[in-house]
Amino acid sequence: MAPLGSRDALPGGMNPDLASERLAASFSVELLTASLDGGAERTRGRRAIVEAIESDPVFSQENQYFQSQNEKYEAAVRRAVYLQKKIRAMGWTQNGPEVQDICRCLSGDIALVLHRVFMRSISVLGSDKQIAKWIPLATDYQIIGSYAQTELGHGTYLQGLETTAVFDTATQEFILNTPKISAMKWWPGDMGRSATHTVVFAQLYVHGKCYGVHPFILQIRSLEDHSPRPGVTVGDIGPKMDFQHADNGFLLLQNVRVPRENMLSKFCEVQPDGTYVRWGSQKINYFTMTSVRISILSDEAIVPLMKACTIAIRYSAVRRQSKLKPGEQEAKILDYQTQQQKLLPQLATAYAFHFINTYLHELFNKGYQDIQAKNFDSLPELHAFSSGFKALITQHCTSGVEICLRACGGHGYSLLSGLPSLYTRIIASCIYEGENTVLLLQTARFLIKCFMAASAGQRVPPSVTYLSSVKSGKCPAKDKSDFLRPEIYLKAYEQMAVRSVTKLQHLIQSGVDKHDAWNQCTVQLEKAAKAHCHYITVKNFVEAVENLDNKAGIQKIMKHLCDLFALHGIFSNVGDFLYDGHLTAAHMDLVTASYLDLLAVIRKDAVPLVDAFDFTDKSLSSALGSYDGQVYQRLYEWAQKSPTNQQGNPAYDKYLKPLLQNTLSKL
Amino acid sequence: MAPLGSRDALPGGMNPDLASERLAASFSVELLTASLDGGAERTRGRRAIVEAIESDPVFSQENQYFQSQNEKYEAAVRRAVYLQKKIRAMGWTQNGPEVQDICRCLSGDIALVLHRVFMRSISVLGSDKQIAKWIPLATDYQIIGSYAQTELGHGTYLQGLETTAVFDTATQEFILNTPKISAMKWWPGDMGRSATHTVVFAQLYVHGKCYGVHPFILQIRSLEDHSPRPGVTVGDIGPKMDFQHADNGFLLLQNVRVPRENMLSKFCEVQPDGTYVRWGSQKINYFTMTSVRISILSDEAIVPLMKACTIAIRYSAVRRQSKLKPGEQEAKILDYQTQQQKLLPQLATAYAFHFINTYLHELFNKGYQDIQAKNFDSLPELHAFSSGFKALITQHCTSGVEICLRACGGHGYSLLSGLPSLYTRIIASCIYEGENTVLLLQTARFLIKCFMAASAGQRVPPSVTYLSSVKSGKCPAKDKSDFLRPEIYLKAYEQMAVRSVTKLQHLIQSGVDKHDAWNQCTVQLEKAAKAHCHYITVKNFVEAVENLDNKAGIQKIMKHLCDLFALHGIFSNVGDFLYDGHLTAAHMDLVTASYLDLLAVIRKDAVPLVDAFDFTDKSLSSALGSYDGQVYQRLYEWAQKSPTNQQGNPAYDKYLKPLLQNTLSKL
Repeated sequence: MAPLGSRDALPGGMNPDLASERLAASFSVELLTASLDGGAERTRGRRAIVEAIESDPVFSQENQYFQSQNEKYEAAVRRAVYLQKKIRAMGWTQNGPEVQDICRCLSGDIALVLHRVFMRSISVLGSDKQIAKWIPLATDYQIIGSYAQTELGHGTYLQGLETTAVFDTATQEFILNTPKISAMKWWPGDMGRSATHTVVFAQLYVHGKCYGVHPFILQIRSLEDHSPRPGVTVGDIGPKMDFQHADNGFLLLQNVRVPRENMLSKFCEVQPDGTYVRWGSQKINYFTMTSVRISILSDEAIVPLMKACTIAIRYSAVRRQSKLKPGEQEAKILDYQTQQQKLLPQLATAYAFHFINTYLHELFNKGYQDIQAKNFDSLPELHAFSSGFKALITQHCTSGVEICLRACGGHGYSLLSGLPSLYTRIIASCIYEGENTVLLLQTARFLIKCFMAASAGQRVPPSVTYLSSVKSGKCPAKDKSDFLRPEIYLKAYEQMAVRSVTKLQHLIQSGVDKHDAWNQCTVQLEKAAKAHCHYITVKNFVEAVENLDNKAGIQKIMKHLCDLFALHGIFSNVGDFLYDGHLTAAHMDLVTASYLDLLAVIRKDAVPLVDAFDFTDKSLSSALGSYDGQVYQRLYEWAQKSPTNQQGNPAYDKYLKPLLQNTLSKL
Repeated sequence: MAPLGSRDALPGGMNPDLASERLAASFSVELLTASLDGGAERTRGRRAIVEAIESDPVFSQENQYFQSQNEKYEAAVRRAVYLQKKIRAMGWTQNGPEVQDICRCLSGDIALVLHRVFMRSISVLGSDKQIAKWIPLATDYQIIGSYAQTELGHGTYLQGLETTAVFDTATQEFILNTPKISAMKWWPGDMGRSATHTVVFAQLYVHGKCYGVHPFILQIRSLEDHSPRPGVTVGDIGPKMDFQHADNGFLLLQNVRVPRENMLSKFCEVQPDGTYVRWGSQKINYFTMTSVRISILSDEAIVPLMKACTIAIRYSAVRRQSKLKPGEQEAKILDYQTQQQKLLPQLATAYAFHFINTYLHELFNKGYQDIQAKNFDSLPELHAFSSGFKALITQHCTSGVEICLRACGGHGYSLLSGLPSLYTRIIASCIYEGENTVLLLQTARFLIKCFMAASAGQRVPPSVTYLSSVKSGKCPAKDKSDFLRPEIYLKAYEQMAVRSVTKLQHLIQSGVDKHDAWNQCTVQLEKAAKAHCHYITVKNFVEAVENLDNKAGIQKIMKHLCDLFALHGIFSNVGDFLYDGHLTAAHMDLVTASYLDLLAVIRKDAVPLVDAFDFTDKSLSSALGSYDGQVYQRLYEWAQKSPTNQQGNPAYDKYLKPLLQNTLSKL
């Protein structure tokens, strides 16, 4: 059964080099897709949504690679606005799984996404009264919201924000100002040209005392004609590496007043006389960001990696270049070990992250419920998880996409391959919602703290109990097949993570000044946090595979991918594993042998494994990655539509002709 | 003395955070610049050229971040054409060091660069008669040349090219065809819209026999009106990740005839009766590519890394974020160990590659002279060098630029930082002129061959004699300061490289089928080739430092950078060094300690070290990297010039207003 009807068809039909790959699948692609979706029912639902959107010309992205920044923005607004119509027309719900399917289908090339963050901020941080006032307005799009936190001078370090909100008891208003150029809000999405309102973060001052950063609802543009409100200067921050469709904005505020009721006050409040009252942790103000970090992982990091793998692996099964042995036919590049070593670990990573993402979402849904019930106990662990995994996943997905791009050689460099735009977009995920190094150090701080608490006999969250319970020892593996046993490689990861953390704890404790000691260990602390998250990812993959259905070959191929993910991590970080002698050089030879063997095994299922991600040709937008594998034909056809071939060549008459005819001097 | 007058000035003046960095320099920036240039005289000459070009508005790149592909192309042609005028007006020579300075100054954003490759091909591969006919035409730009080698279906594997050239004895012509879609020429620069001629590579057939790939001079467009010649279909391949200014083209040929004299025939010829005669190695046909690989390294890889370091390090000395200790002022991000660990190894790498580039150019100039004298002995070593170093240098420079980009956080992601365009451009260098993996395997083949020859007592080139002469042994280092002794770390690198190669030689020899054995080792062969090139780079850096002038602190700071480059390589590849026990885990702790110490030492000179690269503000085109450090002011001013702020917002009337006023359904 073909997974989807909505695939482009070229007269050449299916490339036989792809057809043969699919015939050889060791498992049922359709069942794996259903498993990834969370059931066949969800797969059907998702496909119906994809079909509804892709068949509607309003959502076409056919010209995306030929558009200017202004054209991309306009198209993204058009899609966002018509999507609201479509959602109503189709009777889809705004908060169900459908939204997730729509986002995946539109690849995020849509405006007004910050509107949802605006609403979420109000829902999480607003009082019941604020929610009752603002959420219906936002739901009906009578206002368009944004989220104004980052400033020109401060990003990750929120305590350093310089925008001020001074309470004026006389008028019962807050006076908002960006008192210097570095205080200007800079980067907020949808703010440059679209939003009418925003949640703005500012240092709260009452009677001259600073109470730290708080969120305020602020109208920035007229609802009549969209002009900036008095005291507001707002615009677009200009061209970026990608996200050209998004109007990231700047915002200057000069004595802009908002009523007292506009400070979001579920957890704290300024009373009419200026008394500041707080319930619960101040850290809750950052919870929106914490949860956004987790919510973006799938669409902004894992799905792009899956797409890049789909494109690169299909292309590698079609592209033939050079020969494995003299006299043979030219080989598919996927048959070269070096190509397998580039692509297949990325494929394994995409699956590993699919499973850890499910785990993180479950953890956060539970945490969110606790917090709604004003139980903040899980906040430190949630924060450490969201920080560390956001960093680990975005980092690996970004480098994975880059590897896929480069693995397609010159054609990967053409925008028409779809790979450059995946890369220029995903790299932003390493920076936004918390810069990765800073995030990893926050995770490291949590780990060190937990390790010390556990050593002192105190209770720590289950995810970190291993830090104090693991006994060191030598790896018992004797044969390369031993490294296909999860208990063997899990133990190696566990030891490596424990050693990284415990060693640093000693270094930090031994320092005279604890801040100096910390600052001199940050390079190694960052590594330790990665080691911890990497270990948890491998462990979770092992557990997920154990829980999979054993039918139709799915568990078996997933076990191979899990092994590959684990062994690739060892193969790529040999030093960390050799360091304390748990593994020896002889073990590393076994790991290498097992790892290279696995490449050859998984290679056979590589195309079916990317088919199971079930991307339509339209959502891949790739001349290299289409289902039918007609790559050369498609490159040529798409290139002919480029403005470079459609709009003539004024440079000839102006410059080339005079040069060639030696009349330049007369110009 | 300020190095250059041509710096932008903002009313704010010099940012004091940059001024203080410069006051603290431990060496003379001006003398280091002169040393990098090859003497103060060369520095003066270069600056005069930069001044002449940057002061001429024709060459302005002020709007580069706001332009479409067509606009970029037109601007690049304009610059190329006016450059010819300028060169004549200024009396600059076409082949002297001035061309190098011009290229560096224009950052390669210029059209008609393949014209030089076209000329070089004819000079290297053409007979005296062909040179006499074509070179003057090209020199005067009566024709514009290109270089058509790569096809849609074949890039690196030249033997697989599918374009054919069949000799027709009756008319004394070659009949050129691209017989299928994959045979279409695809990627040649300057061909899509500019060139009138090209050197086209095709399989030569005479009397039904194939003689392999040969180069032919072909006219593709009319010299009257620039229309494609009969039988020629030519156009642009469309948008790319970068190089939007370059009209990379496609070319289809249908029975296009060229006279017998158009086959480049310095080394072989088809005689009138169809007899095929050859003098010298067929491999000489690839020598153009081999030498191009070396000639691009500076402008396309090393200079971009130097620019990225300049931008990121200056910005990191100006950006303050968070605190090293509570109660202190916010710290410059360059004071964080994690930031130093990102940027300073890239700085050391830029210097290491500056020196290896000098070495490679000397090697190639000598090789070129030998080949002109029809002595081909050095070809295998030159080929191995050009392949391995092209791969190593482009790979490290690309990842270095990416690290610099990400180290600047959100602002690095703005095109206005100058970093995204450096990255999207440099990544192409990993792909073009030979894909890096393929190139490394060619180097590996050479190494294995040399190792076997040396083991059998045969003479091998001096660069590889170490493979058979090194005795294994334990590292004698006892203290972290021992790892600042070049003989200690050089020995470690040498052993690591030797082990990588010799181990594989055993694996390959032990295989039943030598092709299978080779194919199953390619992942490790690639690593071995990198290890060899890395070792040579460290060794060359050590020797270059020894030869430096000991005055004005230059040798001392270069020694620090050399140590950092070497230790960073060990720190980042611990497993390779631990593997055979030459270094132990205890050694690694010493390496780590020395490495982290060096970061703190070099950090003090980081800004002067990038100042010494002597880039003007115009050539950096970066709001973050300007000499005066007024980053926030410049970001804001540049953003306001963006078309997103200048061209209105049609999306409001079309989509946002109806949405907000709930009139969407009426549309």
